[in-house]
Amino acid sequence: MAITVVGSVAYDSIETPAGRRDRCLGGAATYFALAASYFTDVRVIAVVGEDFGRRQEAVFLNRNIDIQGIERAAGKSFFWEGSYLDNLNEAKTHTTELNVFATFEPKIPAAYADSEFLFLANIDPVLQRRVREAMPDVKLVAGDTMNYWINDHRAALLEVLKGLDILLINDTETRVLGGNKNLVLAARAVMELGPRMLVVKHGEYGATLFHKALPGSPNSKTFKAPALPLEEVVDPTGAGDSFAGGFFGYLASQAEVTPGAFRRAMFYGSVMGSYACERFGTERLQQLTREEIDARFNVFRELTHLD
Amino acid sequence: MAITVVGSVAYDSIETPAGRRDRCLGGAATYFALAASYFTDVRVIAVVGEDFGRRQEAVFLNRNIDIQGIERAAGKSFFWEGSYLDNLNEAKTHTTELNVFATFEPKIPAAYADSEFLFLANIDPVLQRRVREAMPDVKLVAGDTMNYWINDHRAALLEVLKGLDILLINDTETRVLGGNKNLVLAARAVMELGPRMLVVKHGEYGATLFHKALPGSPNSKTFKAPALPLEEVVDPTGAGDSFAGGFFGYLASQAEVTPGAFRRAMFYGSVMGSYACERFGTERLQQLTREEIDARFNVFRELTHLD
Repeated sequence: MAITVVGSVAYDSIETPAGRRDRCLGGAATYFALAASYFTDVRVIAVVGEDFGRRQEAVFLNRNIDIQGIERAAGKSFFWEGSYLDNLNEAKTHTTELNVFATFEPKIPAAYADSEFLFLANIDPVLQRRVREAMPDVKLVAGDTMNYWINDHRAALLEVLKGLDILLINDTETRVLGGNKNLVLAARAVMELGPRMLVVKHGEYGATLFHKALPGSPNSKTFKAPALPLEEVVDPTGAGDSFAGGFFGYLASQAEVTPGAFRRAMFYGSVMGSYACERFGTERLQQLTREEIDARFNVFRELTHLD
Repeated sequence: MAITVVGSVAYDSIETPAGRRDRCLGGAATYFALAASYFTDVRVIAVVGEDFGRRQEAVFLNRNIDIQGIERAAGKSFFWEGSYLDNLNEAKTHTTELNVFATFEPKIPAAYADSEFLFLANIDPVLQRRVREAMPDVKLVAGDTMNYWINDHRAALLEVLKGLDILLINDTETRVLGGNKNLVLAARAVMELGPRMLVVKHGEYGATLFHKALPGSPNSKTFKAPALPLEEVVDPTGAGDSFAGGFFGYLASQAEVTPGAFRRAMFYGSVMGSYACERFGTERLQQLTREEIDARFNVFRELTHLD
């Protein structure tokens, strides 16, 4: 089943202990789409500037990602500059230039209308809601957000949450959105706001799936996927979006969304997140094979399973 | 197979968001021994003061723990006071009184000599080494330490590490001892110092077993056990020592220490750590049943296993 994703396609300048890259292709929708493309058809809604050329297009087209919905606008693409010199788990933002994103009005190509899965990457909740409402017939909707929207645009975000099946955010965002220092209680509070499932991403410690019903047995309201212990984290940018792409992409590839499918999706999310960290920007995600992905899936199984 | 443990038996005054307890029974050897007692015979080497009475003795004796090696000295027992008001993951120490521990000279009762497993809880590495050398015939030796010994008593600690099979420490301790910010590289450096296995305890994120050889398949040099998502952490004091007790206790209960046994031991460690957090001090660890422990083991399996 095809996924439509709306979010940022951007340029990033990144500095990590492993080095520096200037203006490499980035953005949440880019990482998400590349990661999901190994599992299913992906269609992107975004806006870019005149600096987005053939070379950037090719990154999507080489992975058979539909970019009809990437609008070209006068001006420059969204730009972010950040570093991870002291702490690989948290980016220090130096510059954020919204550029063409400041006036983004998502338009959904007619060819996207039969998408059964929708992912609302981290953008203004007003835009997330607009896309959600324009695609009322999708089967499963997931989304991301960040502290800025949680703190300063809460009313708009709450409207988005009502329309989500699955929210994917990190520990701090869960605690702030749920208003509780205890992660389990915070997760429960977040699910009261709409989503019936919540994936909390813990960075180097993996991720936890909380759910009201579905996955697993009656006793189990959570499922954990570890992160892979990596000898070198070259660049953690986009790891969370890549997790989301692997998670949602795998789900969309399944004929039926069973409890077992959600568990495997958590592992595929971690697999794609681990690959994202191995090179700068989207370099590693552009050049994977499904065989490599499944081989690492098996490494995750060995890493966690008793037998 | 019986375990001998050397370490502190102490009184703790603890404040957490859930409340306060004054002078409850604590100490690393106490938590370790109680947790391990559900799996195998445990023998304790420690020193206490005149304030250690029948009621404290009973806590050990009720769990069939051998306390011949708990020496009574003139003066007061080790005392620690700390709080977790801002952060349940890290204690803020208010008071540490070594008292009788300041002049502790471990003496090993003759009846302990046939112990096949030895655990060196977090104490002065000079004492750890003395006990290790007095028990040269043990089959498996594990131990713990802390940043104070790593930073200020490194030479003595390095001697202890040479005699250890397994070291159990936390993330920060691993990074400091291994001299590397990257956990995988730090773990490898630590194993170069002696132990062939390293268990890194991540608090609320579980624990990772690193190993030079043995557990798992040729591709897998690590194994992960999650922590249980708890709705309320009443008191995290002793969770790491309880993890160690569950881990090492389970190993000692096995006829053969196979790769599978190490994996299950990691889960039993997490089980005992999770129980320790549910009540103040050792309250929960005093009153468990093996059935409760195995039921929670199965919860951990559901929490992590795909099928």
